[in-house]
Amino acid sequence: MPDSIERIEAFARVDHERMERQAMPEFIYADGKTPEQVAAIFSAMVERSGMALASRASVDHFAAVHARIADATYDPIARLIVSRGLPPNPIGQVLVIAAGTSDLPVAEEANGLLRFLGDSCELLCDVGVSGIHRLLSQIETLRCADVLIVVAGMEGALPSVVGGLVNAPVIAVPTSVGYGASFGGLAALLGMLNTCTPGITVVNIDNGLGAASAAHRILTRHRLSSSQRR
Amino acid sequence: MPDSIERIEAFARVDHERMERQAMPEFIYADGKTPEQVAAIFSAMVERSGMALASRASVDHFAAVHARIADATYDPIARLIVSRGLPPNPIGQVLVIAAGTSDLPVAEEANGLLRFLGDSCELLCDVGVSGIHRLLSQIETLRCADVLIVVAGMEGALPSVVGGLVNAPVIAVPTSVGYGASFGGLAALLGMLNTCTPGITVVNIDNGLGAASAAHRILTRHRLSSSQRR
Amino acid sequence: MPDSIERIEAFARVDHERMERQAMPEFIYADGKTPEQVAAIFSAMVERSGMALASRASVDHFAAVHARIADATYDPIARLIVSRGLPPNPIGQVLVIAAGTSDLPVAEEANGLLRFLGDSCELLCDVGVSGIHRLLSQIETLRCADVLIVVAGMEGALPSVVGGLVNAPVIAVPTSVGYGASFGGLAALLGMLNTCTPGITVVNIDNGLGAASAAHRILTRHRLSSSQRR
Amino acid sequence: MPDSIERIEAFARVDHERMERQAMPEFIYADGKTPEQVAAIFSAMVERSGMALASRASVDHFAAVHARIADATYDPIARLIVSRGLPPNPIGQVLVIAAGTSDLPVAEEANGLLRFLGDSCELLCDVGVSGIHRLLSQIETLRCADVLIVVAGMEGALPSVVGGLVNAPVIAVPTSVGYGASFGGLAALLGMLNTCTPGITVVNIDNGLGAASAAHRILTRHRLSSSQRR
Amino acid sequence: MPDSIERIEAFARVDHERMERQAMPEFIYADGKTPEQVAAIFSAMVERSGMALASRASVDHFAAVHARIADATYDPIARLIVSRGLPPNPIGQVLVIAAGTSDLPVAEEANGLLRFLGDSCELLCDVGVSGIHRLLSQIETLRCADVLIVVAGMEGALPSVVGGLVNAPVIAVPTSVGYGASFGGLAALLGMLNTCTPGITVVNIDNGLGAASAAHRILTRHRLSSSQRR
Amino acid sequence: MPDSIERIEAFARVDHERMERQAMPEFIYADGKTPEQVAAIFSAMVERSGMALASRASVDHFAAVHARIADATYDPIARLIVSRGLPPNPIGQVLVIAAGTSDLPVAEEANGLLRFLGDSCELLCDVGVSGIHRLLSQIETLRCADVLIVVAGMEGALPSVVGGLVNAPVIAVPTSVGYGASFGGLAALLGMLNTCTPGITVVNIDNGLGAASAAHRILTRHRLSSSQRR
Amino acid sequence: MPDSIERIEAFARVDHERMERQAMPEFIYADGKTPEQVAAIFSAMVERSGMALASRASVDHFAAVHARIADATYDPIARLIVSRGLPPNPIGQVLVIAAGTSDLPVAEEANGLLRFLGDSCELLCDVGVSGIHRLLSQIETLRCADVLIVVAGMEGALPSVVGGLVNAPVIAVPTSVGYGASFGGLAALLGMLNTCTPGITVVNIDNGLGAASAAHRILTRHRLSSSQRR
Amino acid sequence: MPDSIERIEAFARVDHERMERQAMPEFIYADGKTPEQVAAIFSAMVERSGMALASRASVDHFAAVHARIADATYDPIARLIVSRGLPPNPIGQVLVIAAGTSDLPVAEEANGLLRFLGDSCELLCDVGVSGIHRLLSQIETLRCADVLIVVAGMEGALPSVVGGLVNAPVIAVPTSVGYGASFGGLAALLGMLNTCTPGITVVNIDNGLGAASAAHRILTRHRLSSSQRR
Repeated sequence: MPDSIERIEAFARVDHERMERQAMPEFIYADGKTPEQVAAIFSAMVERSGMALASRASVDHFAAVHARIADATYDPIARLIVSRGLPPNPIGQVLVIAAGTSDLPVAEEANGLLRFLGDSCELLCDVGVSGIHRLLSQIETLRCADVLIVVAGMEGALPSVVGGLVNAPVIAVPTSVGYGASFGGLAALLGMLNTCTPGITVVNIDNGLGAASAAHRILTRHRLSSSQRR
Repeated sequence: MPDSIERIEAFARVDHERMERQAMPEFIYADGKTPEQVAAIFSAMVERSGMALASRASVDHFAAVHARIADATYDPIARLIVSRGLPPNPIGQVLVIAAGTSDLPVAEEANGLLRFLGDSCELLCDVGVSGIHRLLSQIETLRCADVLIVVAGMEGALPSVVGGLVNAPVIAVPTSVGYGASFGGLAALLGMLNTCTPGITVVNIDNGLGAASAAHRILTRHRLSSSQRR
Repeated sequence: MPDSIERIEAFARVDHERMERQAMPEFIYADGKTPEQVAAIFSAMVERSGMALASRASVDHFAAVHARIADATYDPIARLIVSRGLPPNPIGQVLVIAAGTSDLPVAEEANGLLRFLGDSCELLCDVGVSGIHRLLSQIETLRCADVLIVVAGMEGALPSVVGGLVNAPVIAVPTSVGYGASFGGLAALLGMLNTCTPGITVVNIDNGLGAASAAHRILTRHRLSSSQRR
Repeated sequence: MPDSIERIEAFARVDHERMERQAMPEFIYADGKTPEQVAAIFSAMVERSGMALASRASVDHFAAVHARIADATYDPIARLIVSRGLPPNPIGQVLVIAAGTSDLPVAEEANGLLRFLGDSCELLCDVGVSGIHRLLSQIETLRCADVLIVVAGMEGALPSVVGGLVNAPVIAVPTSVGYGASFGGLAALLGMLNTCTPGITVVNIDNGLGAASAAHRILTRHRLSSSQRR
Repeated sequence: MPDSIERIEAFARVDHERMERQAMPEFIYADGKTPEQVAAIFSAMVERSGMALASRASVDHFAAVHARIADATYDPIARLIVSRGLPPNPIGQVLVIAAGTSDLPVAEEANGLLRFLGDSCELLCDVGVSGIHRLLSQIETLRCADVLIVVAGMEGALPSVVGGLVNAPVIAVPTSVGYGASFGGLAALLGMLNTCTPGITVVNIDNGLGAASAAHRILTRHRLSSSQRR
Repeated sequence: MPDSIERIEAFARVDHERMERQAMPEFIYADGKTPEQVAAIFSAMVERSGMALASRASVDHFAAVHARIADATYDPIARLIVSRGLPPNPIGQVLVIAAGTSDLPVAEEANGLLRFLGDSCELLCDVGVSGIHRLLSQIETLRCADVLIVVAGMEGALPSVVGGLVNAPVIAVPTSVGYGASFGGLAALLGMLNTCTPGITVVNIDNGLGAASAAHRILTRHRLSSSQRR
Repeated sequence: MPDSIERIEAFARVDHERMERQAMPEFIYADGKTPEQVAAIFSAMVERSGMALASRASVDHFAAVHARIADATYDPIARLIVSRGLPPNPIGQVLVIAAGTSDLPVAEEANGLLRFLGDSCELLCDVGVSGIHRLLSQIETLRCADVLIVVAGMEGALPSVVGGLVNAPVIAVPTSVGYGASFGGLAALLGMLNTCTPGITVVNIDNGLGAASAAHRILTRHRLSSSQRR
Repeated sequence: MPDSIERIEAFARVDHERMERQAMPEFIYADGKTPEQVAAIFSAMVERSGMALASRASVDHFAAVHARIADATYDPIARLIVSRGLPPNPIGQVLVIAAGTSDLPVAEEANGLLRFLGDSCELLCDVGVSGIHRLLSQIETLRCADVLIVVAGMEGALPSVVGGLVNAPVIAVPTSVGYGASFGGLAALLGMLNTCTPGITVVNIDNGLGAASAAHRILTRHRLSSSQRR
C-alpha cells in the first residue's frame, strides 16, 4: 500500500494524495457511517493534512467529531462539519442562486464547501420563475459571476432562464423540494437535463457538494492558466 | 338503445347528444382505426349533425373520408380532417403559444380544433425561455387573452413563466420534442405538473386537442353567463 | 430591487405585485420551511396587503404565525393558515367533488383557498364510480357549476365520467389515496391525463391549491369580460 | 421424457397433457417464432389432438401453417390462426366489452379464443365512460353474463363502472391504445389495478388471450360442479 | 338522493343497494380515515344491513368501532374489523395459498373476507417455488379448489406454477414482501402479469380484499346457475 | 407431506432436504416475521440439522432466538443470527470487496454467511474508483481469489474495473448507499447490469446473502470435481 | 502506449493482453459500429491472436468481415461472427436452458461463445414453468452441470425453480420476449433479481454473451485449481 | 419586437443577440423540423451573423441548406451542418474522450461544435474501464486539459475514474449505447449523476452539443479574466 493511502482501522483508507491530484482534499460523506467512524476518519485527516470536511452530518456525528477536534464547527442547515480549510483565493467568483426559501439547505451546502476551499462566493435567494422580474432585477449580479450554481426544486426551470442571460458556466442542482409528481426531485432533474439553453450541466438531486466541487475545479484551472500566463 | 346513439356497423356508437351535453360534437381519433372505419363514422356524423372532425389522421384516412365527404379538408401538419364546424363566436379570446418551431404541429392541432368550434384564436411561436426577452416583448398580447394554451417540449418551463405574467387560465401542453432523458415528453409533463406558478393545469403529452377542448369549455361557460346576465 | 419586491431577511423576497399580475396574492408553501420563516413571511404579507395564506402548514407553523397575527386561523384537515382574504364575489360558481371520504383533505384545501379568494364554492363528497348512481343522482348540481374540481385517488376515473355529463371546464386532482401499484397517486395522475373525455385538465397529485388557483383564474376572466360588457 | 411431451426438432416440446391438466390445449405464441417453427408446432398439435390455435400471428405465419394444414383459418384483426377447436358448450355466458373502436383487435382475440374453446360469447363495442348513457342503456345485457371481459385503453376506467353494475366476475384488459403519458397501456393497466370496485382482476396489456383463458377456467369449474350436482 | 344511498354527516354516502347489485355489501377502507369516520360509517352499515367489514384497520380504528358496535371483532394480522356477515354457503371451494410466512397477512385478509361473505375457504402456507416438492406434495388439495388465490412476493413465480397444475381460475396477489429491486411489490406484480400460464388474473399489490371479492363473484354466478339449473 | 418437510405450526414448512439438493441449509429471512415466528423456525432447524442462520434480523429477533438457543450469536452490522455452521473447507478462496465504508454492512452479511458455510473468505474495504490507485495497489490480492464479491453503491462502477483485472468470476452487489437519483440503489444496479466487462453477474440491491450463496455454489462444484478427480 | 494495445485507425484500441488478464480475448460488439469498423477490428485481432468473435452482428457486418477473413463463419440466429477459437477443454460442463422457443436466439448466443472459448456445453429448450413436469423429467441432466445458464422471458420464473433443484451456480438471463407490461424484459429481469432461491445471479436483458463469459470465468478457476492440485 | 429578434415566416424568431449574451450564436436543432424550415433559419443566420450550425441534421436537411448556402458542409457521423464559425482562440484546451468506438458520433458532435466555436480540442477514443491500463497510459494527456468531456454508454463509469485523476472540470455525457437494461442511456445517466468523484457534472443523453457548449462557457470566462488581468 503506497504511503499516500492511510488505513483507518478496518473500514477506511484515506486518500491523502487527492489534494494533489484533484486540487481538493477528500471529503467525508457522513450519512450511513457511525459517529465513531466519522470521527476517526475526520481526525486522521486533520492530523495529516490540517483540515477536514464532513457532509450530510447529524448532530450526533458532530458531537463525536468535536470530542476529538476542538476547533471543528457545525452548520445545521448545510449539515456540514468543518475544520479549517484552504486559504482564500481572490481569483474567480461563484454565485449560488436558490430558487426558493426551501432550496436554501442545498444552496448553503454548496456555499459552505466553497468557503472551505477558499473560493469567493455570493448567495442569491428566492428568485423563482413565477415572478420573473425578481430575477431580471439582479441581472448585473448574474453577469459578474465566473460560475453560477442554480439550485431549484419543483419544475427546475430557473437554470434555463439564468443560462439564457449569461455567458458563464451554469451548474444546475435539482432539489427534492416539491410534492406529488416531483418524485423526490426527479421532475426538476429531468427538467434541467432537458434544458433548451445550451451549456448547462447538472449534478445529482440535492448535491450541493458536487456542484461546489465542480465550480472549484473550474476556478482551479482558471487560476492555473492565469498564473502560467503571468 | 336511445335514439341519440347511432350504431355504425359493429364497431362504433356515435353519441349525437354530446353537442348538447358537452357543447362540442364527438371527435374521431383516427389513429389505430382503419380508413374505412374513420370514413364510415365521419360521414355518419356529417349526415346527422352537419359537421365532423378527425384528429391524428393520415393521408390514407383523408383519402377514404374525402371519397365520401367532398368538402372535407386536411391539414397535414395538424393532422386534422375537418368538415364545416360551429359558427364563429366573438366572445372570448384564446392565445396558443408554441415554445419552439418543433412544437408547431401540436399547437396547430389546438388551433385547428378551436377554429372548428368557432372560437377566436391567435398563435405565437418560438418564444422559449432561453431567450426570455422574446417572450417579454409580447406581454400585451399575453395579457389580452382569456385563455392561454402553452405548448412546450424539453424542460417545459414556458408555462411557469407565462403563468407568472397573466391572470387568465393557462393550459400547459407538454410535447414529445426533445431527446435523451426527455423520455418522449415525460420531462416536460413532470415539469409542468410541478410548476411553481399557481393555477396552471396540464393535459397529456402532445394533446393539442384536449387543451383546445378545455379552452372551449371555459369560453362556453363564459358565453353562457354573459348571455344570462344580459 | 423594485419597490414591489420586499426582502424578508436573507431567505425570501415577497412579490407584492402578484395580486395585480395574477389576480391572486402570493401564497406561502409552509412544508420545508421553519415555523419562524413562515411566520416572518406571513406577517410581512399581512402588513403590506392585509391578507395571507399558508398551505401544507403544521400545528407548529400555526403556533408561530398566531403569535404574530392574532386573527390567523388554522384548518387542520386542509392544513391551511389563513388571515382574512378577498371580498366575496357572486359571479361564477365552483363545485368541488371528492370521490371518496379519504380524498376530503385535498378537496378541503381547494375549498379553503377558494373561500380565501372570495369565490363561491360548494362541496360534494363520496360519489365514486363504483356506484355510478350516486353521481347521476346529483346531475343538476353538476350542470350548474361554471368550473368543476374533481378530486379522486385510486384509478382516478371520476373526472372522465363527470366531464362527459357537463359542458363546463373540469379540473382533475389526483390524490395519493390508494395502495400498492397506485405509487403515491401516479396511477390516478396517469388515468386523468389519459382521459377519453375531451377538455379535462390536470394538476399535480394532492394539489388542491393549484386546482383552486386555476378555477380562480377562470372566474377572474369571467368577471372581467362580464364587467367590460356591462 | 414422458410420452405426453412431444419433442418438435430441437426447439419445442409440445405438452399434450395440458388439455387434461388445464382443460385447454397449449396455444402457440407466434410472435418471435419463424413461420417454419410455428407451422411445425401447429401441425404436430393438429395431428396429435385434432386442433390448434396460434396467436399474434402474421400473414407469413399463416401461409406456412396453411401449406401444411388446409383447414386452418386466419383472422387478420384478431391475428389468430385456428384449426377446429372444442365442441360448443351451452353452460355459461361470456360478454366481451370494448370501450372504443380501437380496442376491437384485443376484444376479437378474446372472442376468437372463446369460440375455439367452445364457450358462448357476445361482443359489445364503443361504450366508453365519456358517454356513460351508452353503457347504462345495455344494463340488461351486462347482468346476464356469467363472466365479463372489459377491454379498454386510455384511462381504463370502464371496468370500474361495469364492475359496479354486476355481480359477476369482471376481467379487465388494458390496451396500448392512447398516446403521450399512456406509456403503451401502462396508464390503463395501473388504473385497472387501482380500481375502487372490489372484485375486478386484471391481465397484461393487450392480452385478450389471457382474459379469455381465465374466463374459460371459470366456466370449466362451473360446468364441472353443475355436472357433479346433477 | 335515492333512498338506497344514506348520507353519513358530510363525508360519506353509504351505498345500501350494493348487496343487490354486486352480491356483496360495501366495505370500509379504513386507512386514511379517522377512527370517528370509520366508526360512524361502520355503525350506519350495521344498523341498516346487519353487518359490516372494515379493512386496513388499526387498533385505534377498532377501539372507536367497538365503542359503538359491541360484537365487532378485530384480527390484527389481517387488519380486519368484522361484525357478523353472510350465512355460510356450501357451494364452491376457495383455496388461498401463501408462498412464504411473510405473505400471511395478505392471505389472511383474503381469508377473513371470504369467511365474512359465507364462502368456504382453506389456507395453505410456505410452499414457494425454491423447493418445488413442497407444492407438488399438495397437488390433490390444489385440484379440488374451484378458485385459487395465490399470494406471493419477491419474484411472484408461484401463480405460474400453480396455474399449470389446475384447471380452475387462479387469482394472483403480489405482495410488497422483498427488498431492493422488488420496489414494494412491483417485481412480483410484473411477474404475475407476464405469466406464461394462460388464464391467470392479477389484483393490486397486497390486495387480499380484491382477490377475495373476485373469488366471491365467481362463486356467486356458480351458485346462481347451479340453483337455476335445479 | 414427505418426511423431509417439517411443518412449524401453521406458518412455515422447513425444507430439511435443501442441504442435500442445494449444498446449503435453508436460511430464515427475518424481516417481516415476528420474533416468535423466527425463534420457532430457528430452533426447529437447529434441532433437526444442528445449525441455523437468520438474516435481516433485529435485536428483538435475536432476543427471542437466544431465549431458545443459547449458543446463537448476533452481528448487529451484518444483522445475522447464527448458530454453528458447516465445517471449514480449505478449497477455494472468496474475496469480498466493499467500495466504501458505507457499503460495509452488506459486505459483512456476505462475509458472515460464507463463514457459516465453512468457506474461506477475506474482506477488502474502501477502494472505490475515484482513487483508482487504492485498488491497483491490491492487485495481487485480487488475482488470488477464486470468486470475487464486489459491493458498491452510488454509480456501481467498481465491479467493471475489478472484472477487467482478474480472470475469476465477479459477483456484483449494488447497495442502496447514495442519495437523489440513486433511487435506493437502482443506479448502481443498472450500472452493474450494463457493465462493459464481460462475465460479471449481479444480485439484488443490498443482497449480500445472495452473493455469498452464489459464491458457495461455485466453490461446491469446485470441490466436487476436485474430489472426483482425485 | 504499451505494446499490448494496438490502435486501429482513429476509432479503436485492441486490448491484446486481455487473454492473459481475463482468460478470454476481447470480443467485438458489432451493433452500432459500421461494417468497415467491425471488419478492421476483427482482422486485426485474427492477425495478432489467431481468433476473433463479433456479437450482435448483421449480415452486412459479416459480408465485410468475410471479405477480409475467409474462414469466418456466421450464425444468423445467435448473430455471431466467429473465426477459430480456443482449444476444447474437457473440464467442467455448462448447461444452457431456454424456457421457450422464442428464447433460443439468446441461448444460442451463449452457446456459441462457450464453443468459441473451448468450453463443453449442452442446450435444453422449451421447459417453461407452466408445465413443470417437462423440467422435472430432465432432473438428472440438470444435476450434472457445473454451471447452469437459464434463459427466460415473460415472468422469468424458471431460474428460481432450477436453482432449487441443483447445487451448482445458476446464471439467469432475462430476455425481451413478452409484451405489454414485460417492458422489453424488465419484468423478467426484476423477477430474477428478486428470486427466492439463494445463489442465483443475473446478467443484463438478452445478454447471452455476458452469461457465457461468467460461466467461462467459473470454469477457468475450476481448471486452474484442478491443475494446481494435480 | 426588438430589432435583435428576427421573425422567419410564421415558425421561428432568430435571437441575434445571443452571441452577445451567451458568447455563442443560436444553434438550429434540425430534428423534427422540415428541411425547408431548417434551410430558411440557417440562411437567415448566415446572412445576419456570417455563420450557422445545425445539429441532428439528416442528409435531406443538408441538401436543402446547401441549395441556399454553398459553403455549408456536412459531417454525417456528427450529423452537423456548419457554415464558417468563430475564429480560433488559443487559450484553453478541451479533451473529448469516448469510452468506446460506438460512442464516437456523440464525441464528434462535441468536437465539431468546439471547432465551430474556435476552441482548441483533442479527441481520445476507446479507453473504457474494462481495460483500465488503456486509460492510465494516457494520463499526461488527461492532466493537460482545462476541460474534459467524457462520453460513455453502458454503465457510464469512465467519468468517475477520469475525474479521480485530474483537477480540471469533467463534463460527463451518457450515450444511448448499450442494450437491455441500459434503457436508452438511462443507466449511464444515473451512473454519472451518482458518481463518487466530486466535481463531475452531467448533460442529457447523447447531448454532445450541450457538453461542448458548457466547455465553451468555461473557456469564455477563462479568456475574459485572463484578458482583464493582462
